[in-house]
Amino acid sequence: MVRPSQVGIVLLGLGVVGGGVARSLLEKSESFAQRVGVPLVLRKALVRDRLRPRSVSLDPTLITTDPEEALATDSDIVVEVIGGERPAYELIREGLKRGRYVVTANKEVMAKHGPELLAAAGDAGTDILYEASVGGGIPIVSPLKRDLSANDISSLRAIINGTTNYILTRMSREGADFGSALAQAQALGYAEAQPDNDVEGHDAVYKLAILASLAFHTRVQPEDVYREGITRLSPRDFRYAAELGYAIKLLAVARRSEAGVQARVHPALVASEELLARVDGVLNAVQVEGDLTGRVLFQGAGAGALPTTSAVMADVLDAARHIAEGSRPSAWRYTADVTIQPIAEIISRYYIRLEVEDRPGVLAGFARCFGDNGVSIASVIQKESDEQAQTTEIVVMTHASKEAAVQASLAAMEEARAVRQVGNVIRVED
Amino acid sequence: MVRPSQVGIVLLGLGVVGGGVARSLLEKSESFAQRVGVPLVLRKALVRDRLRPRSVSLDPTLITTDPEEALATDSDIVVEVIGGERPAYELIREGLKRGRYVVTANKEVMAKHGPELLAAAGDAGTDILYEASVGGGIPIVSPLKRDLSANDISSLRAIINGTTNYILTRMSREGADFGSALAQAQALGYAEAQPDNDVEGHDAVYKLAILASLAFHTRVQPEDVYREGITRLSPRDFRYAAELGYAIKLLAVARRSEAGVQARVHPALVASEELLARVDGVLNAVQVEGDLTGRVLFQGAGAGALPTTSAVMADVLDAARHIAEGSRPSAWRYTADVTIQPIAEIISRYYIRLEVEDRPGVLAGFARCFGDNGVSIASVIQKESDEQAQTTEIVVMTHASKEAAVQASLAAMEEARAVRQVGNVIRVED
Repeated sequence: MVRPSQVGIVLLGLGVVGGGVARSLLEKSESFAQRVGVPLVLRKALVRDRLRPRSVSLDPTLITTDPEEALATDSDIVVEVIGGERPAYELIREGLKRGRYVVTANKEVMAKHGPELLAAAGDAGTDILYEASVGGGIPIVSPLKRDLSANDISSLRAIINGTTNYILTRMSREGADFGSALAQAQALGYAEAQPDNDVEGHDAVYKLAILASLAFHTRVQPEDVYREGITRLSPRDFRYAAELGYAIKLLAVARRSEAGVQARVHPALVASEELLARVDGVLNAVQVEGDLTGRVLFQGAGAGALPTTSAVMADVLDAARHIAEGSRPSAWRYTADVTIQPIAEIISRYYIRLEVEDRPGVLAGFARCFGDNGVSIASVIQKESDEQAQTTEIVVMTHASKEAAVQASLAAMEEARAVRQVGNVIRVED
Repeated sequence: MVRPSQVGIVLLGLGVVGGGVARSLLEKSESFAQRVGVPLVLRKALVRDRLRPRSVSLDPTLITTDPEEALATDSDIVVEVIGGERPAYELIREGLKRGRYVVTANKEVMAKHGPELLAAAGDAGTDILYEASVGGGIPIVSPLKRDLSANDISSLRAIINGTTNYILTRMSREGADFGSALAQAQALGYAEAQPDNDVEGHDAVYKLAILASLAFHTRVQPEDVYREGITRLSPRDFRYAAELGYAIKLLAVARRSEAGVQARVHPALVASEELLARVDGVLNAVQVEGDLTGRVLFQGAGAGALPTTSAVMADVLDAARHIAEGSRPSAWRYTADVTIQPIAEIISRYYIRLEVEDRPGVLAGFARCFGDNGVSIASVIQKESDEQAQTTEIVVMTHASKEAAVQASLAAMEEARAVRQVGNVIRVED
């Protein structure tokens, strides 16, 4: 086969990440050429608005606003860094159909359409690479595909949303409430004006769907992932958790057992001495547990132009090496079909904050509701009293219990008015 | 090209790691076949002693004590898990010459002969893969080759010897001295009866030479790595370090700057809030700093049969996919030629423990020696006094200084009898 004298690249999107990718292609062209064997050449960049000021200055003939022109440009690799589901999905599909390798940073597209796009790449004899879709500059997609591939992976626990981790770190360190911590994150550009995608956990759901699919060699879809955001956490939860020896993190958890696969995103108590408890600010981390390797942790910057560029360019260089050497990429195989375990069936320990009346017998009242549902209490700690309202706050830590039983206990308590209010319920992740 | 119906494997060595590899090939044959596309078949295992009891029972016809018989066996991949320089080196070279892929866990061979073996693999159109040579079950070789390849890496700091990290953790937590912590490590099987290879830092030197070569796309040889072991650390150093807010770790450090590449293995003070300071017991961790990705940390089990099997099998599966799909591996390119910076030229902060006479004017005496050599003192803390000997212990923390200047200061102090004794000198790594 004839080896190409160049690897041609088309960039779809020239925003924060796209600008970083374009700049690194220009500034590091010499070292990339050495590493690949032939030069990497940017042939076209698709933008929405030709006049918008950009961090990188490109030859105007390289810029187009016409998707068809971008895709029709003779190239080997299409890099999609537009984000969002559409039109990115269609553009990626079209790129693969035309025999290009595709490199994407798009978590939403990969979470929703990954298997279809991987199959399309296989049909075309190319590949779709998506290291940048999860964990920014942290290598995690490729380690799951390659480096941990001899393992049966039993669990994956991750902090994969920097915005929420920043907010939770503020709440934990400063006793800030959610609203003011969010405002700080927004002021620093870590959170968007419309923060729901982050604070309600949607972003983490996409990423977890991608990671769980890789870890378990199966397909986990976004709708298979149970989701709870961080908006209900109060400063009191952080204070009590700290007293009990825990941090609170928005965890993305995937586990595999005989009963199937669990995939869930929710706030969780993590023991302070665990590494994940110490991943603070906008950092991300992914901990994978395999039967051979035990627990392995990957940590680093989970977002930002440069870290994401690092991941996009790792994929570009990998694809370029294949193209330059005329080798075919190895197909990623989905080998296992698994059942998704509903949240009601998971077994966990629970932190439960209850507001109760400050009178004799109240403990027996709610304790009975737990007992009737088979939930065993590990400890009960009386926290602050509100003398005026004649209520007191109680924190219950349960032994490992089925989620459904805990929910039934709480429903029974409210039904029997054994508690004034259920303040919060947070799963404990060991 | 005709795709093979099987991938044949020859195993050189059937000890702790070899047994793990053989067992995983047998027990996971079904999932490996699914992941590769064709079955992986163990065709021969080379042992030294046919009668030695093993953790895995193989068909006796698969076992041979004759290296030539092992290498002559029709196979695609030769897995070398004998360890030590010879005869492993010759066997690997011969395997490559016969057109096999080679997977090795051998740090000594790769540190000493890596470039030659990589070239031989390139000539043969195959590859030599060595993920297991560093960091046990932690993916680090492949992330440096692939996932971080778009970065200019400025530094790499690692805890890559589990034995010494276990000993240092004991010394730190229990105030144990080196001898008793070593004895504990030996009793638990974490240290060998002849512990020099670990405690004097040789093992870490091999691993750092491999990592630095990958990180900087150049060749760093074991003799380029400055080395100091952990035997001179005293419980007092841990106590003082903790008071100052530091842990003491045996760090493997590689840095690249205009002045060249530094590569060194020595005890170092690491600020307690850093992740590396919290990597305890037999765990390993590697922190890489790239211009794009920032700091990325990889952590996990650095040794042991199963973690090492995880790394060996990742390479085997990768090679097997190439073989099954008829694709050629991408060659790893050494692109940069760099100067090794001598230890005398490094710039660091220093912790210096001095035993001085307990009398007026002593501070001025040693302070002058620092000043004369351009070493600026950040703080001086007087520690314990020994009234009988009329001496007192002083800990000096310096500002960033050149190693040569610090060494000259200490020599001048001893010359001028400004100190009774230099207790210890430990570099501070930020």
